[in-house]
Amino acid sequence: MNYLEYGKLYISKINATIKDLFNQKVQSVQNEFLQKYYSELRDYFLAGGKRLRPLLCIAAYNAFTKGEKENIIIPSVGTEFLHNASLIHDDIIDRDLLRRGEPSFHYRYQKYYEANEIKKMSKDEYGNSIGIIGGDSAFFIGLEAYFNNNFEIKLNFEAITLYEQAFIEIANGVLIETDMQTRTKNISMDNYIEMVSLKTGALIEKSILIGATYAQAEFSHKKLLSTYGMNLGVIFQIKDDILGTFGDEKKTGKPIDSDIKEGKRTCLLIEAFNKLESNDKERLSQIMEKEEISDEDVVIVRELYHKADVVSTCKQIADKYYQEAMESLNALKPIINQEEAELFESLLTFVAEREF
Amino acid sequence: MNYLEYGKLYISKINATIKDLFNQKVQSVQNEFLQKYYSELRDYFLAGGKRLRPLLCIAAYNAFTKGEKENIIIPSVGTEFLHNASLIHDDIIDRDLLRRGEPSFHYRYQKYYEANEIKKMSKDEYGNSIGIIGGDSAFFIGLEAYFNNNFEIKLNFEAITLYEQAFIEIANGVLIETDMQTRTKNISMDNYIEMVSLKTGALIEKSILIGATYAQAEFSHKKLLSTYGMNLGVIFQIKDDILGTFGDEKKTGKPIDSDIKEGKRTCLLIEAFNKLESNDKERLSQIMEKEEISDEDVVIVRELYHKADVVSTCKQIADKYYQEAMESLNALKPIINQEEAELFESLLTFVAEREF
Repeated sequence: MNYLEYGKLYISKINATIKDLFNQKVQSVQNEFLQKYYSELRDYFLAGGKRLRPLLCIAAYNAFTKGEKENIIIPSVGTEFLHNASLIHDDIIDRDLLRRGEPSFHYRYQKYYEANEIKKMSKDEYGNSIGIIGGDSAFFIGLEAYFNNNFEIKLNFEAITLYEQAFIEIANGVLIETDMQTRTKNISMDNYIEMVSLKTGALIEKSILIGATYAQAEFSHKKLLSTYGMNLGVIFQIKDDILGTFGDEKKTGKPIDSDIKEGKRTCLLIEAFNKLESNDKERLSQIMEKEEISDEDVVIVRELYHKADVVSTCKQIADKYYQEAMESLNALKPIINQEEAELFESLLTFVAEREF
Repeated sequence: MNYLEYGKLYISKINATIKDLFNQKVQSVQNEFLQKYYSELRDYFLAGGKRLRPLLCIAAYNAFTKGEKENIIIPSVGTEFLHNASLIHDDIIDRDLLRRGEPSFHYRYQKYYEANEIKKMSKDEYGNSIGIIGGDSAFFIGLEAYFNNNFEIKLNFEAITLYEQAFIEIANGVLIETDMQTRTKNISMDNYIEMVSLKTGALIEKSILIGATYAQAEFSHKKLLSTYGMNLGVIFQIKDDILGTFGDEKKTGKPIDSDIKEGKRTCLLIEAFNKLESNDKERLSQIMEKEEISDEDVVIVRELYHKADVVSTCKQIADKYYQEAMESLNALKPIINQEEAELFESLLTFVAEREF
């Protein structure tokens, strides 16, 4: 069964569980402002999202389980809360007003501020303060996925430790990226891989491990799943960087100069720094240190990328992670259910080959 | 044993545990920026603080326990992380650069920004982004207090649910307060009590309940402790409001016009709104709706407070909560250890009678 078919089986149940957790919060309060707050958080969560993390959690559980498959749905949503909580805070940091084509969470409260003619604070401060608390709430409500379900306390406790580890790793990844953003020299490809493993790989890996934990999978099998999940995240991010500069705007829906203009430390940029000769390296470095990068600069950077042949090197790196993930998956095939083995494989191929 | 004597027994152990949790994080990472980040968080935590929440957690545990009293120290620090995480985010929201006389966490990264001549982002954005993540990290590292200690999983799991509940209640209190700040009409004393119970009472209550949970105290005894803890928070906040406007600046160290100038919804203000006749009420309302409140306005507000005799009404309300807390404590006295009964009583009296 491929990824989209698998999604069809579960996404409405995942969304119903998310909705339910928020509705419990709405019902637990009398205050109108609080009722609106939890409704707004719920609507923000339900405005979109592929639910990749809950689906992988469900798949990892089902991979080791015969029969009963409903119990995993409640705890599967935990990491989706963690993911969205991070997005709420990211949107404040990046001043993004839209998320999945809908207002970002702090922007919803900037609009509330205007509609209610609030004084005594600026619009930005008001939006940011409720936005910060909104992200915090989502981090905590995510924990509730492990409180009330049909699994025993020992397993829920283990899931909570994985949830916490996932946050620590994401934060480490985001912080390494923030630091990288301020430097141009001495960033190795190893630094990049570490950063994306933490920022993106860790939560995918932990979502899978939480599912496997509830299924009481063996340690050696969890280790194989870890490699699969972590590598899936790394491949996703490398592919994202390549498509961000060399993709088809019509397919990606993202301007192909934005990564360069933002000075994002992509694998392309890091590889170029490492491969170019000193003169070209200096040119690239000077552009990347500018406060504003022009259209002409973008053309030069793209030429330097071609000269250093960074795309094929980055594809080779992605391919190495693909092969390793596939090996882990092949080792799992005799052990896990066929349906989920197919899902894991089709997702891996999809992420590696996607053009959007 | 009074509060200060009790503190002397445990505060250095509490601080050592906090330090240890952060040092584990420092040692878990290779990246220099991350090592600095966790060191900075550790130094922020250790810059000060009365450790009221860990002490109350320890006292609640010891109240029901004979002999071994060291085990509770590790989990007691959890709610101190929750408290400080909230303060880190509050300081961003309120743009406070100092906390306990030392740089606030986001301000530490504004200074880092300057020292390292970082470009590509404004100083405020840089400080805020690392500050937001810093608060998030503290929320999560607090959970680790319940992961690795000498108690069984069932009790740690229960502590985690209390930790989560505490956050939800604090957030509800802060949000109700944010909403109140934008209104002058129709705020009842019940609204105020709800707000301070959530914002301040809940974490004191949960700190005590976590201690009692580890001691496996009976439900009925926990209920009495709940009342004690919640009321302690309410009294603290009412007293804070009274001292904020009618205290002795030399003792409180806080300007006595700042609450009025900030338009803070204190119990004094709410009581004045509810007691004053329509003309006076209108005058007060007009002042409170101003963007900037002058020294002359402050004088008028203080006169209106005198006219409505709000201080004695607020003291009566505090006294009601004091009596109720004392009744709960008296009901517990035959059950709990004498040393902790004395501590709880001395703390209650101290909070109710303090002049600073």
